[in-house]
Amino acid sequence: MKTVKIKDLEKYYDQEVLIQGFVENIRNLPYVIFMVIKDDSSKVQVTIEKENNESLVKIVESITLESTVKIIGTCYNAPSVKLGQKEVIPKSIEITSMSLDQLPINIKTRDAALRETRLDYRFLDLRREDNNLLFKIETLFEHSLREYCIKNNFIEIHSPKISASVAESGAETFKLDYFGQEACLSQSPQFYKQMAMAANFGKVFEIGPAFRAENSHTSYHATEINMADIEMSYIDSFEDIMDMEEAWLKYAFNKVYEKYKDDIKKLFKTELSNLDVKFPRITFKEAKKILQDEFHFVGERKDDFERKEEMLLCKYVKKKYNSDFVFVTKFPFSARPFYHNLDSDSLTNSYDLLYRGVEITTGSQREHRIDILKEQIIKKDIDPESLEFYLDFFKYGCPPHGGFAIGIARVLMQMLNIDNIREATYIYRGPTRLKP
Amino acid sequence: MKTVKIKDLEKYYDQEVLIQGFVENIRNLPYVIFMVIKDDSSKVQVTIEKENNESLVKIVESITLESTVKIIGTCYNAPSVKLGQKEVIPKSIEITSMSLDQLPINIKTRDAALRETRLDYRFLDLRREDNNLLFKIETLFEHSLREYCIKNNFIEIHSPKISASVAESGAETFKLDYFGQEACLSQSPQFYKQMAMAANFGKVFEIGPAFRAENSHTSYHATEINMADIEMSYIDSFEDIMDMEEAWLKYAFNKVYEKYKDDIKKLFKTELSNLDVKFPRITFKEAKKILQDEFHFVGERKDDFERKEEMLLCKYVKKKYNSDFVFVTKFPFSARPFYHNLDSDSLTNSYDLLYRGVEITTGSQREHRIDILKEQIIKKDIDPESLEFYLDFFKYGCPPHGGFAIGIARVLMQMLNIDNIREATYIYRGPTRLKP
Repeated sequence: MKTVKIKDLEKYYDQEVLIQGFVENIRNLPYVIFMVIKDDSSKVQVTIEKENNESLVKIVESITLESTVKIIGTCYNAPSVKLGQKEVIPKSIEITSMSLDQLPINIKTRDAALRETRLDYRFLDLRREDNNLLFKIETLFEHSLREYCIKNNFIEIHSPKISASVAESGAETFKLDYFGQEACLSQSPQFYKQMAMAANFGKVFEIGPAFRAENSHTSYHATEINMADIEMSYIDSFEDIMDMEEAWLKYAFNKVYEKYKDDIKKLFKTELSNLDVKFPRITFKEAKKILQDEFHFVGERKDDFERKEEMLLCKYVKKKYNSDFVFVTKFPFSARPFYHNLDSDSLTNSYDLLYRGVEITTGSQREHRIDILKEQIIKKDIDPESLEFYLDFFKYGCPPHGGFAIGIARVLMQMLNIDNIREATYIYRGPTRLKP
Repeated sequence: MKTVKIKDLEKYYDQEVLIQGFVENIRNLPYVIFMVIKDDSSKVQVTIEKENNESLVKIVESITLESTVKIIGTCYNAPSVKLGQKEVIPKSIEITSMSLDQLPINIKTRDAALRETRLDYRFLDLRREDNNLLFKIETLFEHSLREYCIKNNFIEIHSPKISASVAESGAETFKLDYFGQEACLSQSPQFYKQMAMAANFGKVFEIGPAFRAENSHTSYHATEINMADIEMSYIDSFEDIMDMEEAWLKYAFNKVYEKYKDDIKKLFKTELSNLDVKFPRITFKEAKKILQDEFHFVGERKDDFERKEEMLLCKYVKKKYNSDFVFVTKFPFSARPFYHNLDSDSLTNSYDLLYRGVEITTGSQREHRIDILKEQIIKKDIDPESLEFYLDFFKYGCPPHGGFAIGIARVLMQMLNIDNIREATYIYRGPTRLKP
């Protein structure tokens, strides 16, 4: 006998079925016991009349909540049953795993336990309805990002996560012993996705882990993140990159909204982002002026934003354009990595994409001309010899190209109004969290 | 003016276009120069009449092969041109990157350079037509695996790659310093995909990197591999896992064959696998008997196969069932990890999937009953305390479940008749290879 998913039970009315699931609830009344059984598809009521049913009653009275069971019984259409208008009348109940009586955290309400305790018991924390929905949304969101790439002839790459030590940016790397040699964990696929451009792969994407050995304890940082990376050759300017990213994000957001709009409103109590407008594009210089004129705010850094500036700018854009997104372009070179391509004013042909007050992307055209690239490396006080393997990519022909990366968890946080990256990650890793 | 992909040129006959690409070939004849320009979509001939065209001729004569160019010109339908029956007559040619005159490897023929030299210059090696096709096939194969999962309501997880040191199997792990604490790189998502079962995620998949610190130098081993992992709850037996894997692989193989059948035959000179038959299922005990009866071969290990046995068994299965695939079931517990579920004969409810002589999968029902699981851990001489975080998953209800994993590169090797995993990986990592 094959197990039937609970959501499919209505196809089996008046038939004997085998169902499996967690015991979500038991109501033991004088003449009857009601159980609620939950699998990954739905829930159903199981009804046990106590009369002439001693052995089943004995089993059910021994079951703790959150145990798992296999039940063979008959499924009936039952209009009086609130939960799905059906019920299963069991013939046999087998306890497949018995839960301890006391759970270490409350799995109905998020705020009944400290976050750190919930993270210790993440496998129980994830049983909550909102968390289950979150990872269904992540699944669809990521799949839609990939689907868009596949439809547009991108090649998927899997860049190595272990490499000989290389300084790519200021971020710290984790070091490891690699058969006696020092190696480090990849901070991003940057160099290897650019390598694909030198290999004439044209357009590539990668969705995979990136590692940052930063001792940050904010609500937006993790030492291990899931990144989506894009790199494209034969661009005419970095505007092409923004066009692609906007279309790509809108495609994936729309897929999520189509399927989960109502669930998002119910479980995350948040408004969906308006995707009908074109994301405004504002230069960094204009943005600084807007912050001063509209909010009388001058940030500490002249060449970059601080968090408050990102929030204020998004507030302005939301009001003026009804957009949750804004591209800020042309950051000064001093705030950008060496590989960003510069315009005739020595500003980078780059952008940040801000979403509801938070930067979710940095993108740019890359410098593909080896002489200029070397000059930029030296300007950043990096020894070009340490980047020799990377500079090799530009010696035998490499077309103009550019790309960007987004952190998936950050996007989900902003989309679903989640306050901490620890909540938006399957298993969070931070400086003081290496378990479970 | 927007760059047009070369494959789309026929939509622009008699119009001015901008194209970009690598210079694949130049033929400089007395009155005319022919160039072949290649982007990631196709190739096209660019024709320069020398008369009254001095400045263009001067540019073209300075260009080295494999340089990249931007060309503005008019595209014509030209039935006499062998390459695609069209040509571009240029108005301007801009060299966007100039290749050094001498390439370190021959990029037309695989065997003109040593493999290790080709790997040193992987970005050039990947310009070869067969390598380009390989990664297009990998892209579609993986996407189809994911698509099948999405259609069947799987949740995608991203398990952590850095964890507190944990012994999962015999395989060696890479150790790293994690803010002063010892951590290791994940050998597989095994524990974390089982965690999803305890979280009632039902069915999950993950495609991501796994790390093995094994000092192996075979053609089938790498220290960093791309694995596809599946885990499913509410199974009735491990037969469900094999059913799923067979349907899943056939789905993805069929997608690849539909799109690339002809290219595979041309560039990899290999026959496609027959997918019409059901993969035979043979017990380990039967398999050993077949090896003895049919090939008079007795392997050294009584509880496992060596490579030669896998090859002979596949030969037998191919002849008898016309199948490139075979499931071998019910391996002895001594050859399996502690978490495999056992039948009443103390054999594991597990299987290997062999494909053209090579094991590509190990799958099994898992032991979800904590008491028996602990006994099995002790039988394997592992200290249960070292697995406490994992044992926790089974304390508060965990349904019967099982799963499997495949190494994507190994499948591609067998599918495309590639002789070495170094050739089937974007960037190969082995004990003596950490670059590029």
